[in-house]
Amino acid sequence: MTGAAPRRRGRPARSDADTGPGARERILDAARNEFAERGYDKTSVRGIAKAAGVDPALVHHYFGTKDEVFGAAIEVTFEPALVLPALLSGGEEGIGERLARFFIGVWENPASRAPLLAILRSAVTNETAAAMLRKFVLRRLLERIAVELDVPDPTLRAELAASHMIGIAILRYVLKAEPLASVDTEEIVRIVAPTLQRYLTEAGPV
Amino acid sequence: MTGAAPRRRGRPARSDADTGPGARERILDAARNEFAERGYDKTSVRGIAKAAGVDPALVHHYFGTKDEVFGAAIEVTFEPALVLPALLSGGEEGIGERLARFFIGVWENPASRAPLLAILRSAVTNETAAAMLRKFVLRRLLERIAVELDVPDPTLRAELAASHMIGIAILRYVLKAEPLASVDTEEIVRIVAPTLQRYLTEAGPV
Repeated sequence: MTGAAPRRRGRPARSDADTGPGARERILDAARNEFAERGYDKTSVRGIAKAAGVDPALVHHYFGTKDEVFGAAIEVTFEPALVLPALLSGGEEGIGERLARFFIGVWENPASRAPLLAILRSAVTNETAAAMLRKFVLRRLLERIAVELDVPDPTLRAELAASHMIGIAILRYVLKAEPLASVDTEEIVRIVAPTLQRYLTEAGPV
Repeated sequence: MTGAAPRRRGRPARSDADTGPGARERILDAARNEFAERGYDKTSVRGIAKAAGVDPALVHHYFGTKDEVFGAAIEVTFEPALVLPALLSGGEEGIGERLARFFIGVWENPASRAPLLAILRSAVTNETAAAMLRKFVLRRLLERIAVELDVPDPTLRAELAASHMIGIAILRYVLKAEPLASVDTEEIVRIVAPTLQRYLTEAGPV
């Protein structure tokens, strides 16, 4: 704390590597890796800082507590999902198919699947992580989706659609239940799309 | 090993409490509790034996390794699901509704929900537990269901139906996402039943 470099917003003085503009992203990357590999309970701010090559104080400075690091890490993971409202507002026709293909695409991509699995594993086994997921992602995301829908109980409908995709992810990528684990993604889209279409537009049999 | 009591099948001589006809059930009960409370990784045969009030050797005698105890414990948990083929063979009409109501009923009952959550948590975080679930439950159960169905790819259809119910269980009982966590079960059945109906009978829009 005796460095001569100018400090901003009370941040501890660090080397350039520490405080460079990439430090925040490096910490988030490290956090996602740590949560993914160790799970929520065994991940520490100290471990994240070490993996990111920064001082733990910088992690606290940027994000606060471990809970808050987790929140920020998973929020970034769900950034692809920010396209969902645009996907939904693109007209009712084919909405179920677009949504099914988007979700399967995110899960098929190993780069996005790994952090999603980490979040799922953390949230299913740790109530704090579950609360973080609820607070930082589910509420905001589902509300954004719900405002685009013209159905009764739009948030419930969005949750039921999400529940189906989460369940498919668990059986296909975690439990690896056959034939679902090996079937072509387009076959899943073909069967599931009408379900999502009905949930999100109320078209189809009730 | 010096007891004078007659032994069967090489079982170590124990007190009556150990070897009584209830010992096997007590071990399974204890195993389900231990796996539920501690998760798969932290549960040991020794801990199960202690909770059941028997010698660890008796646990090994009845079930073998920890993996095999887990397999037996979860298999019993899914016994209610053995009614599924009967449920399915009761005619196509209303099959989706019967199935949705059955699943929700099993999850709404705290006595069956706790062990199911334990299995889910173990399988999502531990590959051995996932393999056990696949081997001891999913394959047998899904195959029994599939033979009752008159649709193309019956096992895939059964898995997609199961995936939806598992996803609902995660959002409602684990993540406690609102409004799904609080909505009346009949509302869930009403929305989900047509989906299961279509998956299992191919009736409805494709």
